[in-house]
Amino acid sequence: MTQPLRLGIAGLGTVGVGVVKIVRQKAGLLAARTGREVRITAVSARARDKDRGVPLDGFAWEDDPVALAQRPDIDVFVELMGGADGPARDATEAAIAAGKDVVTANKAMLALHGQSLAEAAEAAGRVIRFEAAVAGGIPVVKALTEGLAGNEVTRVMGVMNGTCNYILTRMEDAGLPYEEVFAEAAALGYLEADPTLDVGGIDAGHKLALLAAIAYGTQVDFGHVELEGIQKISIEDIRTAADMGYRIKLLGVAQMTGRGLEQRMSPCLVPADSPLGQLQGGTNMVVLEGDAVGQISLRGAGAGEGPTASAVMSDIIEIGRGSRITTFGQPATGLKRTQPARSANPAPYYLRMALVDKPGALARIAAALGEAGISIDRMRQTRHDSGSAPVVIVTHKTSRAALDLALEGFTDTGVVQGEPVAIRIEAV
Amino acid sequence: MTQPLRLGIAGLGTVGVGVVKIVRQKAGLLAARTGREVRITAVSARARDKDRGVPLDGFAWEDDPVALAQRPDIDVFVELMGGADGPARDATEAAIAAGKDVVTANKAMLALHGQSLAEAAEAAGRVIRFEAAVAGGIPVVKALTEGLAGNEVTRVMGVMNGTCNYILTRMEDAGLPYEEVFAEAAALGYLEADPTLDVGGIDAGHKLALLAAIAYGTQVDFGHVELEGIQKISIEDIRTAADMGYRIKLLGVAQMTGRGLEQRMSPCLVPADSPLGQLQGGTNMVVLEGDAVGQISLRGAGAGEGPTASAVMSDIIEIGRGSRITTFGQPATGLKRTQPARSANPAPYYLRMALVDKPGALARIAAALGEAGISIDRMRQTRHDSGSAPVVIVTHKTSRAALDLALEGFTDTGVVQGEPVAIRIEAV
Repeated sequence: MTQPLRLGIAGLGTVGVGVVKIVRQKAGLLAARTGREVRITAVSARARDKDRGVPLDGFAWEDDPVALAQRPDIDVFVELMGGADGPARDATEAAIAAGKDVVTANKAMLALHGQSLAEAAEAAGRVIRFEAAVAGGIPVVKALTEGLAGNEVTRVMGVMNGTCNYILTRMEDAGLPYEEVFAEAAALGYLEADPTLDVGGIDAGHKLALLAAIAYGTQVDFGHVELEGIQKISIEDIRTAADMGYRIKLLGVAQMTGRGLEQRMSPCLVPADSPLGQLQGGTNMVVLEGDAVGQISLRGAGAGEGPTASAVMSDIIEIGRGSRITTFGQPATGLKRTQPARSANPAPYYLRMALVDKPGALARIAAALGEAGISIDRMRQTRHDSGSAPVVIVTHKTSRAALDLALEGFTDTGVVQGEPVAIRIEAV
Repeated sequence: MTQPLRLGIAGLGTVGVGVVKIVRQKAGLLAARTGREVRITAVSARARDKDRGVPLDGFAWEDDPVALAQRPDIDVFVELMGGADGPARDATEAAIAAGKDVVTANKAMLALHGQSLAEAAEAAGRVIRFEAAVAGGIPVVKALTEGLAGNEVTRVMGVMNGTCNYILTRMEDAGLPYEEVFAEAAALGYLEADPTLDVGGIDAGHKLALLAAIAYGTQVDFGHVELEGIQKISIEDIRTAADMGYRIKLLGVAQMTGRGLEQRMSPCLVPADSPLGQLQGGTNMVVLEGDAVGQISLRGAGAGEGPTASAVMSDIIEIGRGSRITTFGQPATGLKRTQPARSANPAPYYLRMALVDKPGALARIAAALGEAGISIDRMRQTRHDSGSAPVVIVTHKTSRAALDLALEGFTDTGVVQGEPVAIRIEAV
């Protein structure tokens, strides 16, 4: 048995406490699997005296996570504070400079600074692992970086924000409007302090950008993820989609195209009977496609103390076992910069709008689509309200550019009331 | 860049050819991800002159896989011949003795000899990896050994034989009897040379035994997997199950109980709308449950050139990257022997039988169940044929021992025609 693996844990929120519990309660199992003792040396958090429901005696305390990261008696710095910048980034950089390996659950920090952190770590001969940053307990970083390493990855897809999926499935099940379910989710504590991180698709976009970097050997490029949140999804859209055999999901898609890397995180219609369509509540699913393996999908809890701590422990044990894999599965200095390709792949779209109730209105809309080169798969006028005719159109496959042209054309017709809704229908 | 990783490939069937193609066609990608060149030095197969659709020039040829395994110019012996004993086992042992790492897709060899092979490899400081042996391209060995390493595993479940799942889904979809679909599958080349390996549950049982060893830190114990094949599943059972909202799957379950390790591979009823119930055709799904992570499930192609070669490549790349994980995730000498526990966990059962059509017959069956301590959830007499009354019963949870007692009791009543069918209903 070699030397113990000594951990310094910064951040004692839900996940940090989960990690402490596992290390305390499963010493024998961890030692057997790691081939050495896994030991917590020191911890750091904002408030020392808070009762966290788990004893911290026997661990040194540091008020400053940077000081924790630099302690000579730790081998692995476990960053569970969160935040793209500030203490998390400072301490991670300090840990690398001090020759520590890093395990982190911090998707924001890596989505924004992953390239420079990975380069620094590799220059220092250290590793950064981040299984817990993507899809909670599902070992998807591992599946992609290692399990599919023999594949040219052709597509990465996923529902990776449990809060959004909870809101969308609850809207459908209870027939409630977005605002009401959002308030429920807030009351249940499901939302980030800044809820836009969840419902605006930012958190899920961070995760997608990380997976794309691994999949395509590119520098993580969150800045070019096309982001669209779920805030504008109405109960009408959910009902209409259901009538047509679809469900609306906040779906991430990353795909390399001839024009560059396409990364989207946006509401999409997917078949209701597909594995992604059937995903309920806070569950996450990631779908990976490779030229050799075909399609594999991984499903599980995307958040929570146990699942996230499980992912953190997986990284810790791997480091203890001697794994020295690079952050993105290739040397960071060799990762390519790519052109972003905005919605390069054509798709059918779901369109919903209200037309003024007068003769020829529908014909003008059809003409605007025709002028943009878009053909119609299905069109229906659902019912007449006073002076307003709700219309739903499903197009054949079209480019986003053509669709935008058609949407402009709609405005020019003068027959559309309010803003038309356009949601991509993704082939999953 | 360090030295190239040099492979010796024994077996050039579907999977071997798939591996050769990937190594030939993706040299740059593999080198970037592995951190070194991946190179095939030598190959071995039964017939040298056969056209396999891929050039073998530049590789040394060995008629004898043992000679291949011992070549000084290979680092990794890639065993893709199959067969629990004979050349595969001889060559694997020779490779270990000669100081080579081993990558294999051979579930039978490892299910029967995994313990001794792992001990030999670890004594020699070598590794044996076998991602391709379980569920084709799905990285489930990795997910369990590494991704869930921080968990006490609570249950492993899976549909892991694509041929059986193809037969069962085809029977339901086409309304065809077992014999007819079996003949179809044979004609399509879906069956092993000895079809009992597939339809008798043996192949899937091998896979389950391997996963159980990793999950519970126990010596692989295929001999105590309770095996039951799909040969007796009738179209009537599939239809009746469907009427009640279930599908029949050849389902493996491994679970540690107070009485020992329970390992079952047998037809089970699962809810038709569950992810396992919805699994179509040759697709595999493995469900892993851990105390921290909860339930995760992994889905993908369970066989075929691309998926299986993808899994083999994953192991090769991991070895090239320096991973030295032990075969079962813990030192082989520390793996425990456990008692087998036959169907230790109680479950509801589906029972179908034909009763002689005379007064009191059903009452005698109900009495036999009552005497065995089994209560009835649902019972129905589906229709009357000439002199025979088909009866379907769903019990409440019961032990297998009590059920066997009841089945004996049925015989004693003298009112049951033929053999009653009893299928476990698994909570998934």
